[in-house]
Amino acid sequence: MDVYIRIEHALEAALRPTTSTAPPRLGQAIRQAVFPGGARFRPRLSLAVARACGDAHPELARAAAVAVELLHCASLVYDDLPCFDDAPLRRGQPTVHVTFGEEVAILAGNALIVRAFELLGEQVTQTPLHTGLVLATLARGVGSPHGIAAGQAWESEPRIDLRAYHRAKTGALFEAAVIAGAVAGGGDARAWRGLGDLLGEAYQVADDLRDAHGESHRLGKPVGQDAAHGRPSAVGLLGADGALRRLHRLLADAIERVPSCPGRSDLVLLIERWADTLVPREPVEAPRIASAS
Amino acid sequence: MDVYIRIEHALEAALRPTTSTAPPRLGQAIRQAVFPGGARFRPRLSLAVARACGDAHPELARAAAVAVELLHCASLVYDDLPCFDDAPLRRGQPTVHVTFGEEVAILAGNALIVRAFELLGEQVTQTPLHTGLVLATLARGVGSPHGIAAGQAWESEPRIDLRAYHRAKTGALFEAAVIAGAVAGGGDARAWRGLGDLLGEAYQVADDLRDAHGESHRLGKPVGQDAAHGRPSAVGLLGADGALRRLHRLLADAIERVPSCPGRSDLVLLIERWADTLVPREPVEAPRIASAS
Repeated sequence: MDVYIRIEHALEAALRPTTSTAPPRLGQAIRQAVFPGGARFRPRLSLAVARACGDAHPELARAAAVAVELLHCASLVYDDLPCFDDAPLRRGQPTVHVTFGEEVAILAGNALIVRAFELLGEQVTQTPLHTGLVLATLARGVGSPHGIAAGQAWESEPRIDLRAYHRAKTGALFEAAVIAGAVAGGGDARAWRGLGDLLGEAYQVADDLRDAHGESHRLGKPVGQDAAHGRPSAVGLLGADGALRRLHRLLADAIERVPSCPGRSDLVLLIERWADTLVPREPVEAPRIASAS
Repeated sequence: MDVYIRIEHALEAALRPTTSTAPPRLGQAIRQAVFPGGARFRPRLSLAVARACGDAHPELARAAAVAVELLHCASLVYDDLPCFDDAPLRRGQPTVHVTFGEEVAILAGNALIVRAFELLGEQVTQTPLHTGLVLATLARGVGSPHGIAAGQAWESEPRIDLRAYHRAKTGALFEAAVIAGAVAGGGDARAWRGLGDLLGEAYQVADDLRDAHGESHRLGKPVGQDAAHGRPSAVGLLGADGALRRLHRLLADAIERVPSCPGRSDLVLLIERWADTLVPREPVEAPRIASAS
């Protein structure tokens, strides 16, 4: 079975107990946060790393991949809220708070975070040592001070370090996906450090480029958000050309960083295909910033 | 050392890595969500049950008690948000979103949930079986469909079962505190089922009574919220006298439910002292509902 379909099935199975007897609107909101998905790159990356390492604990690898995606989906629900991006659209659909209201959206995000850790908890008795490491890895990727919560919170600070901000907001969960995959696969996690940071920074620079260039149809969400919210952005800092050069450099560095291992070529192929979707297709010009006029 | 002080120290230690290098406002918001605390009844209850069961895994019991309190504090941050209660005060202080804004408050809540599960993850290698059970218990107490997230979400449904609503919104975390304590203490969790539900329902009925009777000074938060938000309430359903009778009945049932064990008398004393703080001191009259006039 295709890995994308396996991930969808695993997500379905993971959400069934959480949604089937829940308050109906909450159950629907949780599902809308997760389905239909985007590229599912984070769980695919995690599974590919686990396979590249020998797939020592496949059930833990699957739980980790699903948990990574649920945590990612929760972060998108929060990102879209009126007090953050106030986004009406996500993946071309109305955002969760637009459909169900802010209360239910916030509770759906909470339930997704809790479910992610609950799934890991189910693996504890079979592989305690590895599950403990995976749990710590994912908590680091989404919590404070290194993870998504901290990354988002840097936006509320008067002074900001763009690299630390991007690393926490986006890189941390990519890094967690890689390290969790390596641990669950039975690999040496140290050899895999830094790959996720590079991929995360590449993703963020590409997102900044597309936000500035107005590729709303490819993003499935509104553009011009960085400028509108006065957020730090790679385009604002390096210019469009500089940001594009940085994106290519980061992707090349990431591929070089993949350690030598039996599944290396499959993993590099996954990253290359993903990289193709990141690099803007339109010629790079001075960014068109959405204005209120 | 007094158990209350030990809990404060354990909370301090648990939050240090989360706040010390975090974005400064996020770190402060996380601390404001947790300190100064209320009665810390949930972690005290959890520790007392663990002791009553023989305190087989004291480190796990402590981690569970801290996790329960962090999850409780996170739920209060969300509860107070503009889209829920829109509360300006909590424990007599400005609420987290009033001081730091909604974004930082939501992220602080997220970080607290993640930290709670991270703390449990740290116990995995020492006592995998028991840690797995404690983790599942707490996830059930705060997630969906049985925990706080589901309980809050019932408020957004057109039809509601008051008992299911209270059980999920309040009872589930009390129940989780009791069961987690029993598991960490090495007891038979089955013997302890139902005690937390009774305590949680008692707490909710007492909260409804005080909300309706306007005991703002004792609650440290605004009153008349149930009527103002059209929320189901024991006072609305049973009347003030009926709700007070129900509160006494629930407390008596809870004490009767405590299984025979070496630490039974200490635990009953803790519950009785807590019960004293729950029963309204003012004579019960027809509820004074806050009106807009």
